[in-house]
Amino acid sequence: MLEFDKLSLNIPATTKKRVVIIGGGFGGLNVALNLDSRDFQVVMFDKQNYHAFWPLLYQVATAGLEPDSIAEPLRKVFTDQDDFHFRLVRVTGVDSAAKTVKTLIGDLSYDYLVVATGSKSNFFGNAQVQKYAFPLKQMTDALNLRSQLLQCFEQASITKDPEIRQSLLNFVIVGGGPTGVEMAGSIAEMRKHVLPNDYPGLDFSKMNIYLVEGLDRVLPPMDPESSKAAHTYLDELGVEVKLKTLVDTYDGQTVILKSGEQIRSQTLIWAAGVTGALIDGIPAESVERGRVLVDQFNQIQGLTDVFAIGDLAYMKGGDPDFPNGHPGVAQPAIQQGERLAKNLGQLVRNREMEPFRYFNKGNLAIVGRNRAVADLPRNLHLKGFLAWATWLFVHIFYLIGFRNKLVVLSNWIYRFFTYQRGTRLIIRPFVRKEDVQAQEFLVKNEMV
Amino acid sequence: MLEFDKLSLNIPATTKKRVVIIGGGFGGLNVALNLDSRDFQVVMFDKQNYHAFWPLLYQVATAGLEPDSIAEPLRKVFTDQDDFHFRLVRVTGVDSAAKTVKTLIGDLSYDYLVVATGSKSNFFGNAQVQKYAFPLKQMTDALNLRSQLLQCFEQASITKDPEIRQSLLNFVIVGGGPTGVEMAGSIAEMRKHVLPNDYPGLDFSKMNIYLVEGLDRVLPPMDPESSKAAHTYLDELGVEVKLKTLVDTYDGQTVILKSGEQIRSQTLIWAAGVTGALIDGIPAESVERGRVLVDQFNQIQGLTDVFAIGDLAYMKGGDPDFPNGHPGVAQPAIQQGERLAKNLGQLVRNREMEPFRYFNKGNLAIVGRNRAVADLPRNLHLKGFLAWATWLFVHIFYLIGFRNKLVVLSNWIYRFFTYQRGTRLIIRPFVRKEDVQAQEFLVKNEMV
Repeated sequence: MLEFDKLSLNIPATTKKRVVIIGGGFGGLNVALNLDSRDFQVVMFDKQNYHAFWPLLYQVATAGLEPDSIAEPLRKVFTDQDDFHFRLVRVTGVDSAAKTVKTLIGDLSYDYLVVATGSKSNFFGNAQVQKYAFPLKQMTDALNLRSQLLQCFEQASITKDPEIRQSLLNFVIVGGGPTGVEMAGSIAEMRKHVLPNDYPGLDFSKMNIYLVEGLDRVLPPMDPESSKAAHTYLDELGVEVKLKTLVDTYDGQTVILKSGEQIRSQTLIWAAGVTGALIDGIPAESVERGRVLVDQFNQIQGLTDVFAIGDLAYMKGGDPDFPNGHPGVAQPAIQQGERLAKNLGQLVRNREMEPFRYFNKGNLAIVGRNRAVADLPRNLHLKGFLAWATWLFVHIFYLIGFRNKLVVLSNWIYRFFTYQRGTRLIIRPFVRKEDVQAQEFLVKNEMV
Repeated sequence: MLEFDKLSLNIPATTKKRVVIIGGGFGGLNVALNLDSRDFQVVMFDKQNYHAFWPLLYQVATAGLEPDSIAEPLRKVFTDQDDFHFRLVRVTGVDSAAKTVKTLIGDLSYDYLVVATGSKSNFFGNAQVQKYAFPLKQMTDALNLRSQLLQCFEQASITKDPEIRQSLLNFVIVGGGPTGVEMAGSIAEMRKHVLPNDYPGLDFSKMNIYLVEGLDRVLPPMDPESSKAAHTYLDELGVEVKLKTLVDTYDGQTVILKSGEQIRSQTLIWAAGVTGALIDGIPAESVERGRVLVDQFNQIQGLTDVFAIGDLAYMKGGDPDFPNGHPGVAQPAIQQGERLAKNLGQLVRNREMEPFRYFNKGNLAIVGRNRAVADLPRNLHLKGFLAWATWLFVHIFYLIGFRNKLVVLSNWIYRFFTYQRGTRLIIRPFVRKEDVQAQEFLVKNEMV
């Protein structure tokens, strides 16, 4: 038995400055990759042993890709980097006075601490929804969702109760941001190309996909023109978009909207928002809107040598072009990581740090085949095939690892010509305690 | 909530003969594919929604392939087949007198029943071992094992207790058949090429791979020359082979061999044997050595119109060349399935059935790169590169689905040149209740 008190971080002592990075996402990865090992010993903590390309997570959830296509083992990423130390362990907090970071298995002193823990699903305190909704934030979420989607159709084909069948064929996606739009579009394309062949016994004219958004348009962060185009694409694919609509509650069976409208559904997908994944030891006054207030060097307000980057960071007023902080997407995290690495290099040479300035390369969202929208610099807006091609290119380009690029590309080419989804596999147990139905199904089927 | 009493199989009535097939493995798949839909309505039951190419399962367990590479959704396989009906449901038994098959959600009458439920791990009644060992029989087993293997190295890097570290670096594989040999070889190649780069802090000269076999040679079903070659390859790769050795017990921490020798190990992989996956309603007198006695038409002894094929079937004395039945591998299942489909076609025309004759295309086992053995017809034996190339070709050739061939091939090519393993991902929860250590690790790390 592995007792936790018999564990220790086993980080070698060093005469260099030690940078501890919490999280191997877009932010943390790019700090580590850009630090000079002659100046720094780099220690990275993460609860996962891989870096994942989250923008493609929805394709794992909709049977388009396997996890390995969008994930790269962190140890592999840093194989050739000297004096880099990865530890698969959870950080419990930070003691900025003692300049130590606390983990489950012991503390570690740092010279510089980078908190890049990213964000987590935000249910805005709605415990009911949190209990029964399917989030889409982690790899297991996506795999769980993949099994759930397919299981709904399997179960719809063996039920005699039309009400239950309908609830299995109703899919409610909450949140009209990129994730929600891409999820809705992807499920709609499965209905168009894959499902009728897989389930000839089911009447797919009865399958409904609802996209619920609180504001008055989909893709709120994007240009109104792009929102309009995306909305049109969703209409074309038969997604029922409900704007200015909020979810009141969900018991796993019936979604009740604030409007009072009820939708019977076994599957509520939650893409309605995120909040920073905070850690203990960050002063309360440095937290605003669930994110950590940082100055223009990403230094956490009120702390020295402690930095926050990416989704977690809220650079309020620091970046002239983005007075209300940066969008919670990959690019700001990547750019902040690169900038911070350079700035730490400046610090050890007692040189001035450079303030972070976000260069917005643009925003993309895909709805389906030949249907995408892009807001690019110089107020350039693309839609349709051009935006779609741009989306594909950009996502392959930013994907980490040659093999991943290869596998994703071949999967996409295959899918483009065959309209197929390769990974329509129900592989359990990937099921939440609350998901009683799935549990019962699994147990009775001896699938667990 | 989906209540089971509200479910029904929803199989349309038919004037044709109805063939019910239990199991979508090699046997069941090849019966269904070869039945003429003008003569038969085909109903297939399985607890999984995919057909898996089990000979490559060990590569999923050793981070070489993702499940989608070796699995094909059953509904996709039969997309173009008329009057074919798949149901994801567990069969609970058969009433051969009433000619009905019982499932969780109702009974279904059949004209012909094909039991192709395959086999399951056989722990020979050793409950202790069954509780703590890692089987390698299903997709979830492989994924669970993949996480376990990687987690052992992660935990070995953070333990200060040398005894525990050693137990994390000791891997015991029980069973010297193809699965055991391929597992041992695959782990040994990871130690050679992948792990030292991933875990620079660990001393891999201390990592031990034990292959425990009860008989006096590895690959007992193969030619003694092949066994000898395989043994040499295992030695070359540093696998410690223990012949004429049996496991007494295992408590999750220490493997105790019948010889009294003890090996501290967190990972005991069970590949020591299988037994038929029987279903209720098959008369006890028709079961021998855990398999179902069938005549030379694969008809179950004592039952009419009920057939058993593949791992489950024991054609005792039926096949002159194989008086003691057929090996529990893919080929007999495939050939019996094809033969049975033809014979059912004969039956509906009141023609004579043809007895099954197994054509042994040969046996293959791979130990590692350029290291494999092959027993081919005409007493031809290959080893080394030739056998290895044959193995690769045969496995790609028999893999179902163009996409799978493509993905597996590109993964193998990539691996051949880079010595990498693409899917070194710890993705939980895929953990058994008994695996307290993993559970604790997951919970404390908030990975569940």
